[in-house]
Amino acid sequence: MGSVIVDITMSLDGFVTGPNAGIDNGLGDGGMPLHDWVFDGVPEETALLRDAVAATGAVVMGRRTFDTVDGPHGWSDELGYGAGQVPPPEESPAFFVVTHRAPEQVRLGLPFTFVTDGVASAVEQARTAAGERDVRTMGGGDVARQVIAEGLADEVILHVAHMILGAGTPLFRDGDPPASLERVRVLDGPATTHLFLRMRR
Amino acid sequence: MGSVIVDITMSLDGFVTGPNAGIDNGLGDGGMPLHDWVFDGVPEETALLRDAVAATGAVVMGRRTFDTVDGPHGWSDELGYGAGQVPPPEESPAFFVVTHRAPEQVRLGLPFTFVTDGVASAVEQARTAAGERDVRTMGGGDVARQVIAEGLADEVILHVAHMILGAGTPLFRDGDPPASLERVRVLDGPATTHLFLRMRR
Repeated sequence: MGSVIVDITMSLDGFVTGPNAGIDNGLGDGGMPLHDWVFDGVPEETALLRDAVAATGAVVMGRRTFDTVDGPHGWSDELGYGAGQVPPPEESPAFFVVTHRAPEQVRLGLPFTFVTDGVASAVEQARTAAGERDVRTMGGGDVARQVIAEGLADEVILHVAHMILGAGTPLFRDGDPPASLERVRVLDGPATTHLFLRMRR
Repeated sequence: MGSVIVDITMSLDGFVTGPNAGIDNGLGDGGMPLHDWVFDGVPEETALLRDAVAATGAVVMGRRTFDTVDGPHGWSDELGYGAGQVPPPEESPAFFVVTHRAPEQVRLGLPFTFVTDGVASAVEQARTAAGERDVRTMGGGDVARQVIAEGLADEVILHVAHMILGAGTPLFRDGDPPASLERVRVLDGPATTHLFLRMRR
């Protein structure tokens, strides 16, 4: 059985997007440098992405993240899950979208399932779909936060971008349950420090 | 001339203390593990502290931090600035306390100056006192945050403890001015990842 991994980029002040994030502004105002490591990383960072895509059998995301990736400026044949690391269709992970209501239509030809009964259900369905591979939570911030707060995550990979955003979508919130984590690896990219953490039970 | 360095430990969710911090509870509820690296660190972490103390000519702190270190369970001859690394009195840095009003009495026999006209003034006075050595901001969170937000910091050393506190004193706040930083070093301690960052101007 694979692991449930929250895998997300945040600023030093804990924001996963800048302010005013939306369909055409996925990372929010000033948030683009968060993903410098994705699109302009050193070889070790590209390998991180490639290895993550290869190990992932199912992805959990929030509705706003779905709307962005399925939107007109979202994913394409060249730019999909894992940035440049688009797996061939037959190897695509299954995608589970946490939402209140399924959208009327979907642009992308990817295996999306819309889950309306909460994050825990989405993770459970993703676990089943992933089989021996991992489940990855790619955001938004609130879904990632809930997966951690509800004790559903086995690992947390925080890509900490060396910037202060000052505002935007926070990953953590006041009132999250305290937790102790064990760092199992650190990778120091030029614009980002990547922390690989395991939740202690 | 030395550098102005914000040097502070925070949790993954950005808290520099847990909730209910006070004179007898300096790190707040559940916050003690933040300083595991200080009191139980590996040799490289002890060297960090020793080098920091040796390089520091003046320290800026907030009033609540002062009240804690000057309080009945605060610093002693064995446990002072830099944890176990107490410098001999003649090498003690000068301490500048940002406060609304100077206290009526001070327990510790250390060179404290009480600054009532704000953080920028405290940093300026500390710069003068430090001469060729560095100025370090040790907290609390709000003083450290202001030193960063007001553009007074040259470097930020974040000791990121591998824990989620969930509540407490935040280092950053909504509305802080955005900033880009350059990481110049990373040290991976067992309980803490130490990020050495330089502010880009």
